[in-house]
Amino acid sequence: MSISAWAAAEAHRPLELFRYDPAPLGPGDVELRISHCGICHSDLHLINDDWGSSRYPLVPGHEIIGTVTRLGPAVTHLRPGQRVGVGWQRSACGECEYCRRGDDNLCTQSQATCLGHHGGFAAAIVTDARFAFPIPEAISSAEAAPLLCAGITVFSPLRRHRVGPGMRVGVLGIGGLGHLGLQFAARLGASVTALSSTAAKAEDARRFGAAEFLDTSDAAALQRGRRSLDYILSTVNVDLPWKEYLRLLRPDGKLCFVGAAPSNLGLRAGDLISGQKTVTGSNIGGRAMMADMLTFAAEHGVRPTIEGLPMKEVNAALARVAANQARYRMVLENP
Amino acid sequence: MSISAWAAAEAHRPLELFRYDPAPLGPGDVELRISHCGICHSDLHLINDDWGSSRYPLVPGHEIIGTVTRLGPAVTHLRPGQRVGVGWQRSACGECEYCRRGDDNLCTQSQATCLGHHGGFAAAIVTDARFAFPIPEAISSAEAAPLLCAGITVFSPLRRHRVGPGMRVGVLGIGGLGHLGLQFAARLGASVTALSSTAAKAEDARRFGAAEFLDTSDAAALQRGRRSLDYILSTVNVDLPWKEYLRLLRPDGKLCFVGAAPSNLGLRAGDLISGQKTVTGSNIGGRAMMADMLTFAAEHGVRPTIEGLPMKEVNAALARVAANQARYRMVLENP
Repeated sequence: MSISAWAAAEAHRPLELFRYDPAPLGPGDVELRISHCGICHSDLHLINDDWGSSRYPLVPGHEIIGTVTRLGPAVTHLRPGQRVGVGWQRSACGECEYCRRGDDNLCTQSQATCLGHHGGFAAAIVTDARFAFPIPEAISSAEAAPLLCAGITVFSPLRRHRVGPGMRVGVLGIGGLGHLGLQFAARLGASVTALSSTAAKAEDARRFGAAEFLDTSDAAALQRGRRSLDYILSTVNVDLPWKEYLRLLRPDGKLCFVGAAPSNLGLRAGDLISGQKTVTGSNIGGRAMMADMLTFAAEHGVRPTIEGLPMKEVNAALARVAANQARYRMVLENP
Repeated sequence: MSISAWAAAEAHRPLELFRYDPAPLGPGDVELRISHCGICHSDLHLINDDWGSSRYPLVPGHEIIGTVTRLGPAVTHLRPGQRVGVGWQRSACGECEYCRRGDDNLCTQSQATCLGHHGGFAAAIVTDARFAFPIPEAISSAEAAPLLCAGITVFSPLRRHRVGPGMRVGVLGIGGLGHLGLQFAARLGASVTALSSTAAKAEDARRFGAAEFLDTSDAAALQRGRRSLDYILSTVNVDLPWKEYLRLLRPDGKLCFVGAAPSNLGLRAGDLISGQKTVTGSNIGGRAMMADMLTFAAEHGVRPTIEGLPMKEVNAALARVAANQARYRMVLENP
């Protein structure tokens, strides 16, 4: 059975229809009929080979929701017809210390869904069943899709860093990741401030759970916000005056990057020593964290705000993501 | 009673004999007859006004050991004749959230022993009794002195960051701070690597508890050391290729600065995200941490290696510190 998909033939080209024959179903594999796939900024980076690791033809898409159509004989935790999701990570070794302790996202043998494999802008996929996650009934398929990458990316650091009641948390950037970050942080019990240079997003931010909105384009507001936050989750991928953001933190505060600001952060050791401040990063999440995130989202009403488009309009959808026009996550839908 | 001390009249001048009348003993104060005072690199910064906050005449010295000679009427936890130590911090408000939770070192009202007050290169001092710490009997006065600043500075982050058995810890820089950092990390149960560009210190480093020595001037050794450490405590105050040091860390590893490398660290968000790495800083330690550190040092045999000189040879001693010749901490002694 060949799979119909949308692929980039080379960098900076529109996606085109593409058919490929998947590898034979291995004993630990699952075949999915894809119903939905979210679009992440990383898909644009993959298409354009921004990281120098893309291989063409490249089928993007790593916020996949689908239904199990076939299972390898070794798979015991899934059943045909079950609805599952697949995110950025396709597989891991399963035996290293990171895999054993549930941090499979740190495994050096980790493979990505769209690097060296074909991703979710497609009618189907054959992938490692260990990284196919059952979706709680309470979440619709279209709304579940963005949780698989955007959701886990923001939930994992908030959980690992024990964000909860009594903490004042800033979420920087109100986009695909940030609008979920606001919701998770608020539902985890934190007092949440949205940090954005787009004042027009203030009302949405409050709807997502922010108690405060700090307009980062307003120097006086940044000054007034000094020493007001315990934790900042940065979802932006642009360069900012990070020293100013460290000043928003109270002593012992933490700035966590999930968005990759491209350049030198411009920080000095002295910026960290006097207030015992921390700068860190977080990278998706392991299998246990993914299950935790999906359960938490289902139980606490965390849902992305999405714009749905038919899969065949993938290039129009990508253009909206590239222009930062999506409010707040594009999701492609198969007929 | 006037106090005899050694003071800098202005920046970059040798210290000279100086007499001053201390403020009257307040209800919460203690007067000490000083027996010993260690020399910290910060004393050189104070003397030379490197931080723009020095006031002259300036009496340096914040690794003070002395005997209680007088007590204010409100002091109930000390007694005349008792041996106590005083470090960098002279006082705090006692009532803010940081003070109440035992992080008095983060109090915004914190005062320093040698800024706006006269320090320990002197025969006596009048200071806030809350920051005078009883010294365990097992530790000699000369050896106790460096614990009050160098000791607490390295112990606090190791303790707060839960360094212990099963962790691979690097201590970068084998000087006044680093030689104590090696000892504390090893006695806390970690497997310790000394990181230094001075291969001649390898034998000393092993004596202090290092299982390994990594010569940081050897590019091949740095390469071999990649992904080998869970934690690096940086005690150096020079600029280094920090990205290379992050590469020494395993996933989820942490680089903690207690020495203030002066310039931009040259790190990018991507250096932190993929391996979920953390960069942080630590600043002395609160009163509870100080007591913990002194007890731990007494019980586990952590002792600085010192060079003693009479207080009157303070300028010669400072010159040895400035030239990085001290092995490993200079301690001034009153007759």
